[in-house]
Amino acid sequence: MKINPANFGDIDPGNRILMGPGPSDVPPRVLQAMSAPCIGHLDPYFLQVMDETQQLLRFLFQTKNPLTIPVSGTGSSGMETCLVNLVEPGDTVLVCVNGVFGTRICDIVQRIGGDLIRIDAPWGRAIDPEDVRRAIQVNRVDIVAVVHAETSTGACSPIKDISKTAHEAGALFLVDMVTSLGGMEVALDEMGIDAAFSGTQKCISCPPGLSPVSFNPKAMEKLQNRKTPVISWYLDMSMVASYWSPERKYHHTAPINMIYGLREALRIIAEEGLEQRWERHRVNHRALVAGIEAMGLSMFVPEEERLPMLNTVLIPDGADDLSVRKALLSQFGLEIGGGLGDLAGKVWRVGLMGHAARPKNVFLFLSALETILKAQGVKVNKGAALDAASSVYDSL
Amino acid sequence: MKINPANFGDIDPGNRILMGPGPSDVPPRVLQAMSAPCIGHLDPYFLQVMDETQQLLRFLFQTKNPLTIPVSGTGSSGMETCLVNLVEPGDTVLVCVNGVFGTRICDIVQRIGGDLIRIDAPWGRAIDPEDVRRAIQVNRVDIVAVVHAETSTGACSPIKDISKTAHEAGALFLVDMVTSLGGMEVALDEMGIDAAFSGTQKCISCPPGLSPVSFNPKAMEKLQNRKTPVISWYLDMSMVASYWSPERKYHHTAPINMIYGLREALRIIAEEGLEQRWERHRVNHRALVAGIEAMGLSMFVPEEERLPMLNTVLIPDGADDLSVRKALLSQFGLEIGGGLGDLAGKVWRVGLMGHAARPKNVFLFLSALETILKAQGVKVNKGAALDAASSVYDSL
Repeated sequence: MKINPANFGDIDPGNRILMGPGPSDVPPRVLQAMSAPCIGHLDPYFLQVMDETQQLLRFLFQTKNPLTIPVSGTGSSGMETCLVNLVEPGDTVLVCVNGVFGTRICDIVQRIGGDLIRIDAPWGRAIDPEDVRRAIQVNRVDIVAVVHAETSTGACSPIKDISKTAHEAGALFLVDMVTSLGGMEVALDEMGIDAAFSGTQKCISCPPGLSPVSFNPKAMEKLQNRKTPVISWYLDMSMVASYWSPERKYHHTAPINMIYGLREALRIIAEEGLEQRWERHRVNHRALVAGIEAMGLSMFVPEEERLPMLNTVLIPDGADDLSVRKALLSQFGLEIGGGLGDLAGKVWRVGLMGHAARPKNVFLFLSALETILKAQGVKVNKGAALDAASSVYDSL
Repeated sequence: MKINPANFGDIDPGNRILMGPGPSDVPPRVLQAMSAPCIGHLDPYFLQVMDETQQLLRFLFQTKNPLTIPVSGTGSSGMETCLVNLVEPGDTVLVCVNGVFGTRICDIVQRIGGDLIRIDAPWGRAIDPEDVRRAIQVNRVDIVAVVHAETSTGACSPIKDISKTAHEAGALFLVDMVTSLGGMEVALDEMGIDAAFSGTQKCISCPPGLSPVSFNPKAMEKLQNRKTPVISWYLDMSMVASYWSPERKYHHTAPINMIYGLREALRIIAEEGLEQRWERHRVNHRALVAGIEAMGLSMFVPEEERLPMLNTVLIPDGADDLSVRKALLSQFGLEIGGGLGDLAGKVWRVGLMGHAARPKNVFLFLSALETILKAQGVKVNKGAALDAASSVYDSL
C-alpha cells in the first residue's frame, strides 16, 4: 500500500473571515503561541502554563472554583464531561430545550441513564423561567440544565432567574456557556452556577479543541458522593482534577500546544477587559442589526432575547440560501452559517464572536450581502444598511 | 474579580529535547502548519484537508478501512472510543495486561459494563500468545484487546500471533497502537486487526490532542448491530463517521488547527517512507542500547521483546532517579521519563520517537547521562558508551 507525498501540498487555507457560528477568527498572537515548541506535560514550564491558564479561566468565568480547567476535547466534550460526572443513573435532570444544543443535552442524559424531564421553548425564543418553576413544582429534580446562548437560534436565556428557581428546588444548576463565554456577561459565582462548560472557538477566539469547564464546591461534592463510577474514564473529573491540582497525577497527556493557544487567547481577553469586550460585542451587534433591518431584512429572534454574538437573519423571499453563502465565501472569503434542523433554509447565522466582532466585519458583511442579494434579484433598500450601521457607531 | 494581564508573559517554553515517553519533538513544519489561519469545519478547503488526512492515515495504518479518522481527543480518548463503540454491556472482553495501558483498558471495560477476563504478563515482558489461547479455550470471548507497544514498560507484544488466536475464536481484535504507529511495523489489514487506536504525540511527532482510530468492516458491523446506544455521545462513531464521510453531517466542531498539524506530520512520514522510518527507529535504538550497556547499565526488557522507540533503562545502584532527570532537564534541556506504578524509581524511560529518533539525540543522551552519573558518584565505564553507539552507526 503506497502513497505519493507529492500529491499533498502545504497547508494553505487562504484568508477567510469567520462570521459563522464558530470557529471565529483567531488572532495571530494565538496562532503564534500554538506554534511554540511542544514540551512534556510534566515539564515545570508547562505546569506553570497550566496554573496560569486556570487563573485566566477563573477570571473569564468570574469564579473562585478551584476546578476550572480546559477539558481535552471540543465544546461537546465539555457538555459530556459535566453530565457524566454530575448525573448518576436514576437522577432526574430537567433540561430546557430551545434549539440543537438543548436537544443534545437530552440525548446525553438519556444515554447515561438519567431520568429526563424536558421543557421546550420555541426555537428562536428564550427559556421562560416560569416554565422551569412549574416543572419543578410537580417533579423532584436533581439537576437543571440550560443553554445560555443557543448557537443554533441566536436566543439568550435568562440565567439568573432560572438559577434562582433551580436553587430554590435544591437542584444543581448546569449551564452551557459555549457561545456566551467571552462575549457577554458571565459570572459563575454571582449567577449561582454550579457547573458550566464552554468552547474555545467562539468568543474566546482560539481554535476549536478544548472545552473550559468549571465545577463549584457543590458540584464537586456531588461528584465525590457518587454511588457509581463515572461511566467515562477519559472525562472522569475526579482523576482529571488531580492532574490539574498540585498533585499533578498523570491521567492523560494534555494537548500542550492547544493549551498554549488558549492561554494566549485568555491573556488577550484580560488585556481588553471583560466589560469592554462585552460592550464591543453589543455595539457591533447593534450596528449589524441596524444594517440588516435598514436593508429590509428581519431578525429571527425578538429584540430583547437576542444574543450579541450570534445573529439569526431571516432569509428573504427570493434569496437562495446556499448560493448566497457560497457567493459570500467565494467572492469575499466570508463565512456565515446556515440554519440547523427546522431552521435550515430559513435563517442565516451571522457570528460576531471575539476577535471577529469588529466594525470592518460588520461593514463588509452588510455590503457583500447587499451586493449578492441584488445580483440574485432580491429587493433590498439600496445603500441603507451602511448608513444605519454607521449611525450606530457614530452615536457612541 | 480582577486580574493583571501584565503578570502573564509570552509563551516561551525554550528549547527542549523530548526523549521521554511522549510527547516527542515536533518538526517545525508541523508547528507551522498548526499556525495557519483557522477556518470553518465545513469550509471546502477544510473538507479537502480531512480527506487528505484520512488518505495519509490509511497509508500509515496500512489499511483500506473507510473509517480511519483522528478522534477529537488525546490517545486515551481513542482507547475509550474503541471500547464504548465495540463493547456492549455483557460482552466478554479478554484484556492482555503487561503495563499501565492494559490496566487502563480493563478500567474502561468495567465502567461500561463489559465482562472482563484479564490475563497478565509480568511488567516488562511481552504478552504470551499461548496465555491468550488458553484463556480463549475456557471462555467465550467477544473481544480480545492488547497493547502493541507498552509505553509504561518498553515491551512489544506479538500482534500477529495474538490476532490469529483471537480470530480462530471468532472474537474481534482490538489493538492499542499509541506508541507503535509510525515507529515500527504496523499493518492493520495484513495483521488482521479489526480496530486500532493511536496518539499523535509519539512516533507521529505531532503535538498531543488527536487520536487516530481505524475500524474495519467487521468492527463497523458490530457497531451497526448494537442493541444498546453507545454510552458516549461525543465518541459515538456512528455519528462521528458521518461527519468524516461524504455526508459531512455536523456532529461536533473538529479541532481544525490540530488536524492541520497532523496532516503535515503524516506528509512528512509519507516523504520519508514507512520502511525507512521503521529502520531509523531500529538503528537508533540499537545504538542507544549499545551505549547504555557499554556504560555498564542494563536494559529492563529482554532483547527480543524490546520496543525500538521506548527504552527502559534500569536505574543503576547509587543513582537518584529524580535528581538525574532534573539534571538532564536543567543542564541539557533533555527530557526523559520516570517509571510508572511499581516501576517508579526503578527504570528510566528513554524515548526515541519519530522526529527525535536521531543519532544526535542518542549521543547527547549518552554523554549527558554519563556526565551526570559520574557527578553523582555512580560507577560507569568512562567513554565506552559513545564508542559503542558509534560502532552501531559505523556498521551500517
